[in-house]
Amino acid sequence: MELSARNQLSGTVKQVKVGTVMAEVVVDVSGQEVVAAITRSSVERLGLKQGDNVKVVIKATEVMIGK
Amino acid sequence: MELSARNQLSGTVKQVKVGTVMAEVVVDVSGQEVVAAITRSSVERLGLKQGDNVKVVIKATEVMIGK
Amino acid sequence: MELSARNQLSGTVKQVKVGTVMAEVVVDVSGQEVVAAITRSSVERLGLKQGDNVKVVIKATEVMIGK
Amino acid sequence: MELSARNQLSGTVKQVKVGTVMAEVVVDVSGQEVVAAITRSSVERLGLKQGDNVKVVIKATEVMIGK
Amino acid sequence: MELSARNQLSGTVKQVKVGTVMAEVVVDVSGQEVVAAITRSSVERLGLKQGDNVKVVIKATEVMIGK
Amino acid sequence: MELSARNQLSGTVKQVKVGTVMAEVVVDVSGQEVVAAITRSSVERLGLKQGDNVKVVIKATEVMIGK
Repeated sequence: MELSARNQLSGTVKQVKVGTVMAEVVVDVSGQEVVAAITRSSVERLGLKQGDNVKVVIKATEVMIGK
Repeated sequence: MELSARNQLSGTVKQVKVGTVMAEVVVDVSGQEVVAAITRSSVERLGLKQGDNVKVVIKATEVMIGK
Repeated sequence: MELSARNQLSGTVKQVKVGTVMAEVVVDVSGQEVVAAITRSSVERLGLKQGDNVKVVIKATEVMIGK
Repeated sequence: MELSARNQLSGTVKQVKVGTVMAEVVVDVSGQEVVAAITRSSVERLGLKQGDNVKVVIKATEVMIGK
Repeated sequence: MELSARNQLSGTVKQVKVGTVMAEVVVDVSGQEVVAAITRSSVERLGLKQGDNVKVVIKATEVMIGK
Repeated sequence: MELSARNQLSGTVKQVKVGTVMAEVVVDVSGQEVVAAITRSSVERLGLKQGDNVKVVIKATEVMIGK
């Protein structure tokens, strides 16, 4: 399946922190950190752990610009 | 002002396309493209144009992971 | 690639309306309509048109409940 | 009050999981599951529980298409 | 229908700008401006126009804090 | 840094509730409450606490209208 969300950055999982409902996944993208707050059940379904090669996916309407 | 959104990636504006209400801004982030769909009035207020050094800002709850 | 976004509903494209920057895609999901506002360039990249079998994908943090 | 968000799908609550701040609500929509991550205080304010007839509400700009 | 999104601020529509797909609605909330980018079809469905008394509705997960 | 997100409302922090991953920040904006669900690490990085003068920041594409 190809996704309409064009922002798909390659990276490596640095850290996974898990709460009751939510989880925080820190990804290294070309030396810059990207943090994702996703559900704990998605972390478990994907089996996300440190060192995984992943894509960081972001819908264009969610991206802001600072100048 | 410091912002709660931790995802702030440095990049350079490659292209700005402007519609009546919305605008699409393509940013080069370490060789990977990030696309932002923001309002046209924000593009005009920030004076965004090709070559600008900008930050791409994304709230952690908007980031997905693909594996 | 498997995506962290768990909400993936199967449907059929009913209508595509294209503006300069954005596009509106109406999808029939089990007889209920779901509308997506995505960028025009994503519509073109996926070649979306009436009758396509697609998935409607939504991050859990974007879903509200009304009662 | 009528809401600008057009995506309003009827369903039934299957499960509610509550954390300190967030909660996960699983809704059956015509046999497909939709998961919502909302605040715990919203779950309590609406009194959400298994079996409730609810609407799943999603802003069009939050919907992606996969093909 | 009561909505899980708790942020519901009362205001008055100051301006509506309509594009092909999207529309921009500027609302005065206690003297501060709030701008909404919604679909044109939602503006037409609600019949939004200058002077309307409306609620600005925002899901808690979409709100950032600057300090 | 100036941000593309135009919605920046001044307010005062009334309450901060912290979970393992997420936190809920209640802000008083001209007598109306705005609730933000942000990551716990952002609350800690900004040192958010009751009484702080803050800005509530919201991207226009995240704002809905109710009428």
